[in-house]
Amino acid sequence: MSNLLGNRYRVQIFGQSHSPMIGAVIEGIPAGVIPDMDFISAFMARRAPGGALSTARRETDAPRIVSGLNDRGETCGAPLCVLIQNADARSWDYDSLRDVPRPGHADYTAAVKFAGHNDIRGGGQFSGRLTAPLCFAGALALQLLKQKGVAIRARVHSIGGIQDARVDLAHPPMDGLCPGPLPCVDPDAARRMAEAVEAARAEGDSVGGVVECFATGLPAGLGEPMFDGVENQIARALFGIPAVRGVEFGLGFAAAALRGSQHNDPFHMANGRVVTAGNNHGGALGGITSGMPLAVRVAFKPTPSIARQQRSVSLSRSEDAPLCIQGRHDPCIVPRAVPVVEAAVACVVLDMIMEV
Amino acid sequence: MSNLLGNRYRVQIFGQSHSPMIGAVIEGIPAGVIPDMDFISAFMARRAPGGALSTARRETDAPRIVSGLNDRGETCGAPLCVLIQNADARSWDYDSLRDVPRPGHADYTAAVKFAGHNDIRGGGQFSGRLTAPLCFAGALALQLLKQKGVAIRARVHSIGGIQDARVDLAHPPMDGLCPGPLPCVDPDAARRMAEAVEAARAEGDSVGGVVECFATGLPAGLGEPMFDGVENQIARALFGIPAVRGVEFGLGFAAAALRGSQHNDPFHMANGRVVTAGNNHGGALGGITSGMPLAVRVAFKPTPSIARQQRSVSLSRSEDAPLCIQGRHDPCIVPRAVPVVEAAVACVVLDMIMEV
Amino acid sequence: MSNLLGNRYRVQIFGQSHSPMIGAVIEGIPAGVIPDMDFISAFMARRAPGGALSTARRETDAPRIVSGLNDRGETCGAPLCVLIQNADARSWDYDSLRDVPRPGHADYTAAVKFAGHNDIRGGGQFSGRLTAPLCFAGALALQLLKQKGVAIRARVHSIGGIQDARVDLAHPPMDGLCPGPLPCVDPDAARRMAEAVEAARAEGDSVGGVVECFATGLPAGLGEPMFDGVENQIARALFGIPAVRGVEFGLGFAAAALRGSQHNDPFHMANGRVVTAGNNHGGALGGITSGMPLAVRVAFKPTPSIARQQRSVSLSRSEDAPLCIQGRHDPCIVPRAVPVVEAAVACVVLDMIMEV
Amino acid sequence: MSNLLGNRYRVQIFGQSHSPMIGAVIEGIPAGVIPDMDFISAFMARRAPGGALSTARRETDAPRIVSGLNDRGETCGAPLCVLIQNADARSWDYDSLRDVPRPGHADYTAAVKFAGHNDIRGGGQFSGRLTAPLCFAGALALQLLKQKGVAIRARVHSIGGIQDARVDLAHPPMDGLCPGPLPCVDPDAARRMAEAVEAARAEGDSVGGVVECFATGLPAGLGEPMFDGVENQIARALFGIPAVRGVEFGLGFAAAALRGSQHNDPFHMANGRVVTAGNNHGGALGGITSGMPLAVRVAFKPTPSIARQQRSVSLSRSEDAPLCIQGRHDPCIVPRAVPVVEAAVACVVLDMIMEV
Repeated sequence: MSNLLGNRYRVQIFGQSHSPMIGAVIEGIPAGVIPDMDFISAFMARRAPGGALSTARRETDAPRIVSGLNDRGETCGAPLCVLIQNADARSWDYDSLRDVPRPGHADYTAAVKFAGHNDIRGGGQFSGRLTAPLCFAGALALQLLKQKGVAIRARVHSIGGIQDARVDLAHPPMDGLCPGPLPCVDPDAARRMAEAVEAARAEGDSVGGVVECFATGLPAGLGEPMFDGVENQIARALFGIPAVRGVEFGLGFAAAALRGSQHNDPFHMANGRVVTAGNNHGGALGGITSGMPLAVRVAFKPTPSIARQQRSVSLSRSEDAPLCIQGRHDPCIVPRAVPVVEAAVACVVLDMIMEV
Repeated sequence: MSNLLGNRYRVQIFGQSHSPMIGAVIEGIPAGVIPDMDFISAFMARRAPGGALSTARRETDAPRIVSGLNDRGETCGAPLCVLIQNADARSWDYDSLRDVPRPGHADYTAAVKFAGHNDIRGGGQFSGRLTAPLCFAGALALQLLKQKGVAIRARVHSIGGIQDARVDLAHPPMDGLCPGPLPCVDPDAARRMAEAVEAARAEGDSVGGVVECFATGLPAGLGEPMFDGVENQIARALFGIPAVRGVEFGLGFAAAALRGSQHNDPFHMANGRVVTAGNNHGGALGGITSGMPLAVRVAFKPTPSIARQQRSVSLSRSEDAPLCIQGRHDPCIVPRAVPVVEAAVACVVLDMIMEV
Repeated sequence: MSNLLGNRYRVQIFGQSHSPMIGAVIEGIPAGVIPDMDFISAFMARRAPGGALSTARRETDAPRIVSGLNDRGETCGAPLCVLIQNADARSWDYDSLRDVPRPGHADYTAAVKFAGHNDIRGGGQFSGRLTAPLCFAGALALQLLKQKGVAIRARVHSIGGIQDARVDLAHPPMDGLCPGPLPCVDPDAARRMAEAVEAARAEGDSVGGVVECFATGLPAGLGEPMFDGVENQIARALFGIPAVRGVEFGLGFAAAALRGSQHNDPFHMANGRVVTAGNNHGGALGGITSGMPLAVRVAFKPTPSIARQQRSVSLSRSEDAPLCIQGRHDPCIVPRAVPVVEAAVACVVLDMIMEV
Repeated sequence: MSNLLGNRYRVQIFGQSHSPMIGAVIEGIPAGVIPDMDFISAFMARRAPGGALSTARRETDAPRIVSGLNDRGETCGAPLCVLIQNADARSWDYDSLRDVPRPGHADYTAAVKFAGHNDIRGGGQFSGRLTAPLCFAGALALQLLKQKGVAIRARVHSIGGIQDARVDLAHPPMDGLCPGPLPCVDPDAARRMAEAVEAARAEGDSVGGVVECFATGLPAGLGEPMFDGVENQIARALFGIPAVRGVEFGLGFAAAALRGSQHNDPFHMANGRVVTAGNNHGGALGGITSGMPLAVRVAFKPTPSIARQQRSVSLSRSEDAPLCIQGRHDPCIVPRAVPVVEAAVACVVLDMIMEV
């Protein structure tokens, strides 16, 4: 453990890629809320496989709420449990999978940690499939946040080095992103990214990318320094998404190359509110929201499952061994990661609002 | 709150820049340990101001342990409390500070959060001074980790865009870094960084940078997915250091531009152990240590306190107002941040080891 | 919230009396364990209704594990989710229930807390039915504890003032209790207790009692003072069982009437071990286990649901109103509470052992 | 660990009987509060030794706040650290203490837990002295609670079997208790209790007792079932006080002997509010406050330190050994425990109010 996220809006995730079910138990939802299942299902569909750029695996992601609602369908103060059925696991040669760990996957580290008892089927608890219940929790959080005037939206910032257009972090693109699996400001960039994904797929390879997420409408004053500030909590949540390798806020690593006179965002008054002209700080100062849009970027590594033969080891024979991964895999996880990033940020933002 | 870090090696930090004392209460230290005060003091001295590149402010950082030791000076199982005296606060015009928030600081966000009751003196609880007790906790953790064969070492990766030489993440430079305030692989890079810092200072400005930290000797199998994995916990800790804007592991954001065939680290056997040739994964797969060196990079923004006049607002008059920050400030926080990053990583690594 | 118990063996309970399902998510189970479903089911059957002294309501308590096991049926390190189906809720006049709170129940307090959105059906989340997943978690803990030589056993100490025979707390009756719904040392006491329960039932009334639980085989040294000691943690768990009004260890409240010279348990050596002759301290000194049997007593109030007409109020009309509770209810919860107490103690004891 | 109490008003206690200092770090205090040091000191004085019925040991309990206040003496949102100096430890033969554990104390269990490194001086971290910082935290909580209309008051319920007069739990005696070290409703009972204490002291013995605590002015709806309900949290806190052996709410263990028709408190309307005539439930139903006074009783064992020779063992020689405890000790801890119980309840009640 721990598959537990949050203090006030607390999400306990469970399941493995091929366990009978996956799901989440959520505590802390205010009483009296009727979950908007249409909204939640539409949100979860954005994460589901089957899109133009993803794997052909079919998932049955229809979420079923089995506790936490009263006879009128309202949240009642009790923990809400949501279940998602897994399709039946295919017959498979698990022993060979268990013996030869896939590079870039958790097969080896999990085998060490759990003394060989880890669930090897489909990546077990390390599967991206576990982001489905996170998306449920995030979608429910978004429903609650909307009532508070908070919006959360992510875009594909780059794939394989191909970047979307730059945006003004003080006025992020909360709508108007191009439709399809690669929400970008610049449709042409989205097109070239799609080509890069297809090229990788055609070569039996994969490619990584960066997702950028914005939250607007946040009040100033959220976050609990020094270890439960905005950045700490969001980073902790985002690193729970498989394949994340880096998290940065505002200008992030680019800030390290600047002068203070360039990076500092001067305050000024606008319509009776204290604002900053730019938003290099990404909406958080000292771990506390400033009231400016929150801006966070998340780096995803290329999907480790590739069709090409790779070098690995046989754990049983303690010798080098080649590995060919079967099955169909996403050549790029980024399109499906966009709503997952939104969900993780939504859970944390709601938690912080409820903390105040 | 919360100024609490860790589950098993748990550190509660307290204090403000000008409160009578700052310090920490540490629970979970194994009984029977005699803190090596020489080692701890030497470690803390690396963070203390007064170096060639830092502010002239004198701090009295001698840590005093006031609980947690038995009559033989050994840890006894009770919480260890360490105190560090603050020098007397200078007389100062706090009301003007309170009225005109410094750009890039927490003055404004803290004023909102705490309804104007935040401690404005010297940055209050948001001051970098609060990293002194974190360094104490980290140094004590390093003492314990050394017995387990774990070493932790950070270098300056870049300042103001000037980069140190590239290193092999599979064989990180745990010693042999150049001496002085800017530990680098390449002394020439360190020299040019120092010039950049001096140039910034001369122009009444500041400059940011990146610290890279390595941990070797870690067993495979540490970390608790999905939200208490290696990256989650280390990121949460590192974002508790003032001025951190980004955290990345292994290749980090650079991984997002690669193909899977480039990024995956193949496994092979070496001396009977499973290892990887490269270390693009930075020592963590699926949130669990692989046994390869842990590699994390941390982006620091340029110090927001600069001598130049800046634009801000008067909170009392709700109008724009110029601001000139008095006092002497570090033109670059990176040199002093190097041991702080080591300390944060040490606390988390020890916690993870004790969790297993 | 919080329906979360434990630090290392962590149990998240969810559900309401008439939600589609109830269950638990358990984190921290060692990998490689095959749950003994026969043992677990037999344990849970002791709590199930239908016994000679309990309600006639039928429950379908067959637990189904839907996550946390690998393809060989072993725990795999992922959270284990267990589901228990609820029978379909009867049609019922919930509005009248909602309006007139039952004395001694949580109807009124939950209505205030959850602004009328609480699940009123069958007591909602406050129902004794929620102890079924706790029994699952406890039975699994007992399976693990057995391997460590730890045994846990409870008896009925008293019902309606009728007491079982006194026992030596240093040599508690771990077996040999009389069979049937009222495990006692003295079968005659059990018989008289049963008569008291039947008499209460016959008069449309209910009766309370005390359960006493013992744990043997505990190593000395468990427990984390001052707020996570043996007593703190066990008491916190036991007060989570509906109808519990008091918890005491060793001699408990009777100790308050004694002299120190009577109450202190002298140490002596026996077979090379440090033991005490008596066990007034109930196995815990300073919040830490002594190696002597743990002894805890738990007071249960009489079931608040009684057939007799009672006085209450109409919340909608803000006036006094009579109340007649329909349905069949246990005239005494104590027989079914015996395994629940064992389960709660088992969860905490396993947690403490894993903490060390 | 853990010496940490609370979620929202979070108290970290540290220190040992003879460490240089003891104290607490408190997070979660609202910003802008000026601690009423006169009130706090007066409260702490009730716990201090030196009263007619207690030990002659002098303590210097003056609390010093060293962090958490701004330049105007208000809480500023940062953790508040309070320090209390310990008098210098007397020279003492600690080795013999370490070898022969005192019956009824934590000497033996702590030696096992901490492998002989526990602080043996004056009971180390298990000393009643650690309740001084708890009293500070409780007094500060009482200051905050008073503004919310909440009052907390404890009385001596019994000592050595001598009981104070019965009270109506629905109308508890929040004032009018007799002055002096034994606050009782019946001055004559207090006098006889004092005689019992003196008789025990004269015979080199000690005696136990029960403290009863009430809280009035609580809103209905506090408490978080099932494991953070009112009773769970208060019991967890109270069992952190040395020598506590039992905790019960409302009628407590006496409820177990009653019929439901006797025990249930009927609801009725009074002045537009829902109330109960009696208060057998002690202010909590289903783990949630009902708005009626909270009533909790706490059993204290007789002080284990008695002047009479006792039997024990030599840990080094693994043989039985007699023991004579030197020094002066309270013949009854109950008088000094009265404010400690109030403090523990106050911390929890404030925490629960802040949780809502």
